[in-house]
Amino acid sequence: MKTFKAGMIGLGTVGVGVYKLLQSFNKIKIENIAVKNINKKRDIENFNTNLLTDNPFDIVNNPDIDIVIEVAGGISPAFEILSAAIKNKKHIVTANKELLAKRGSELFGLAKENNVTILYEAAVAGGIPIIMPIKTTLCANKINKIAAILNGTTNYILTKMAEKELSYETALKQAQDLGYAETDPTGDVEGFDAAYKIAILSTISFNKKIDINKIYTEGITNIKPQDIKAAKELGYTIKLIAMGQLLDDGRVDVRVHPMLVAKKHLLAKVKNATNSIMISGYPVGDLVLTGAGAGAEPTSSSVVGDLLTLTSELEISDYPLPLTKCKHDENAVQIDIGDTYNEYYISIQASNNPGVIGIIGTICGKNNINISTIMQKGIDEDNTAEIVVITEKSKESDVKNALENLLKSDSINKINSLLRVMN
Amino acid sequence: MKTFKAGMIGLGTVGVGVYKLLQSFNKIKIENIAVKNINKKRDIENFNTNLLTDNPFDIVNNPDIDIVIEVAGGISPAFEILSAAIKNKKHIVTANKELLAKRGSELFGLAKENNVTILYEAAVAGGIPIIMPIKTTLCANKINKIAAILNGTTNYILTKMAEKELSYETALKQAQDLGYAETDPTGDVEGFDAAYKIAILSTISFNKKIDINKIYTEGITNIKPQDIKAAKELGYTIKLIAMGQLLDDGRVDVRVHPMLVAKKHLLAKVKNATNSIMISGYPVGDLVLTGAGAGAEPTSSSVVGDLLTLTSELEISDYPLPLTKCKHDENAVQIDIGDTYNEYYISIQASNNPGVIGIIGTICGKNNINISTIMQKGIDEDNTAEIVVITEKSKESDVKNALENLLKSDSINKINSLLRVMN
Repeated sequence: MKTFKAGMIGLGTVGVGVYKLLQSFNKIKIENIAVKNINKKRDIENFNTNLLTDNPFDIVNNPDIDIVIEVAGGISPAFEILSAAIKNKKHIVTANKELLAKRGSELFGLAKENNVTILYEAAVAGGIPIIMPIKTTLCANKINKIAAILNGTTNYILTKMAEKELSYETALKQAQDLGYAETDPTGDVEGFDAAYKIAILSTISFNKKIDINKIYTEGITNIKPQDIKAAKELGYTIKLIAMGQLLDDGRVDVRVHPMLVAKKHLLAKVKNATNSIMISGYPVGDLVLTGAGAGAEPTSSSVVGDLLTLTSELEISDYPLPLTKCKHDENAVQIDIGDTYNEYYISIQASNNPGVIGIIGTICGKNNINISTIMQKGIDEDNTAEIVVITEKSKESDVKNALENLLKSDSINKINSLLRVMN
Repeated sequence: MKTFKAGMIGLGTVGVGVYKLLQSFNKIKIENIAVKNINKKRDIENFNTNLLTDNPFDIVNNPDIDIVIEVAGGISPAFEILSAAIKNKKHIVTANKELLAKRGSELFGLAKENNVTILYEAAVAGGIPIIMPIKTTLCANKINKIAAILNGTTNYILTKMAEKELSYETALKQAQDLGYAETDPTGDVEGFDAAYKIAILSTISFNKKIDINKIYTEGITNIKPQDIKAAKELGYTIKLIAMGQLLDDGRVDVRVHPMLVAKKHLLAKVKNATNSIMISGYPVGDLVLTGAGAGAEPTSSSVVGDLLTLTSELEISDYPLPLTKCKHDENAVQIDIGDTYNEYYISIQASNNPGVIGIIGTICGKNNINISTIMQKGIDEDNTAEIVVITEKSKESDVKNALENLLKSDSINKINSLLRVMN
């Protein structure tokens, strides 16, 4: 059995997990680890600090190294490091979702030119096997839809908001105290992290290049306890859903936003920091894969799984390996959110007068929107009422028009919330 | 791109599904299909009946054929056909769970000797990717537990028994009428089908040879509506669970039996003919994979997924491929059901007299069994009462002893049911 030599970029939480797990597998030897601060204390027993370097190009330019493991994150200098490594014919295993979502097609192009492989199971949904199954077992399918909970932080916050009737702010604070959310939670709570992951999944599922800037991305910062309560009464729970769909006309619809998910839906049962991916294709039908989406241990499972699979393949061939395959030379035609069709939950603050339901119904009707449920909630002290509407499937631009028209009516004070619904 | 030539054994429902799906992939060409009855009408448009042969050895001995696809099922002649094919250096893709569970180790041994690959994603859980993920993405894990719903027929019957309060017999009849159960349902309802599948999964998860005859197998034919009702009241639903565990001492515990599954458990939500696999390992934690476990379309997804993965690999190498890897030369030490520890649901038919709860409590206590719940159900016309007991974790042999002792008491008429519980 050949031993492969690897260099690692980054030694944070995931890096330490990968390093520790690799101690059980003598097929892969870590030659060097590039870190920002060589003197920082590492949580590894009997750690040989001679492995450390503060110059990643010591790894990239080391002719003995076969594989570069990148667990540093971010765009720069990760892009420059991995590009140089690929040009030096090194295979890549990375957990860097942002890099792949934003500059993946350049890296995959370089890898193809240089006959090397990039594996990235850990970049999406931590320990859940999803990239490799799409490329192997599921490769006979025409995948037409992915709907997924891909961000553990936001799912944790939404779970606590629902279970303990907390405000967003309080739930976020608790998540931060427990280490589920970062001090600056923007990347998670605004949906960017989920957008990177659904971009990667959509790319390999639909075999088309997805432009991350065209993904409609809406986070959870505006979710109100009253929405969660109303959703519950109506038989729904609120989740941040990352969705990718291949439409019949070949366009793709990729987006991230909160949704009311029907309680009977398998994604509604996914609690706390757990991730879950529903993938629908022909002929396989619907699959749901659920597991830990982050953390050193689940992520290291995927990084080391990729490493062992890669080295098994390298033992038999130097050719570009089938597992690298990802056709995304063609740009996807990404649909605008205004052109999508959804069911909607709309919470409206209105005067408490008898004609108001009629006004809402009329304006919705004029904008081609069929209402399936309308429910008046309690009356506030200022004699306004919250009215909750669930629509049938309607075009988003029609819904936006209807909301503008509603706001012109004297009886409508404001739109509290607009959320999409998944049944 | 090379075109690979394949021969197919069997052209039943799954075979037709595979044949149709392969029409979209010109990398694989079906040269011949062996069937029992050449003259039978096939549900394939413009089908070229010249492909058919009633002699499978036409395929096995055809030097042009690279791959044999086996979708016929059964042990004989499938074993003889595949053995001969392997000796003739043909790679195998099979959906035959019974064959792999009973004679897999012989076939894998032959394949190793002959440098060919056997892929069998379709043999377990239809369209759900599980075999390949265990061999690739998850291969860095120490897998220590699988708990799964692997038989769609029994899950369908149990779902209908629960939802519509049907007897087993009525639910079976309805399942047969709808095509979910076969005319002779034995293989499904007695748990044999699930046992084949958990044997295969345990083998690759624990890397040890599992003896199918040592798997404790109990089906669903004795499940009573009153059990389902009592389970529901206690917060459980009844599922046929296939389980494999690697114990700390290296022994393995593989078995199939109905269980009361706590309603909050992800496996409790799996309805109708859907399959679901919970796999637990270190470092990945718990994963749950859910999807269609049978049927022509999901099964053909896995068969053709295997074929495309195999041919991608064959394009780069003739070596034995990493995906074939399965170390199971070592026999597992399989634990006897009597030595397992479980929580139990026990339904007891007893005289309606004041001392009976005391008798049950005393006998359980003498046998090291702690009771967590005891509930007296309605009184029958003959003045007997049904008493339902849920125990804490207890040794199966202790529970069996307690039941024997209970039956010696004049106050205990019979044990209606004994089921294990999963929380």
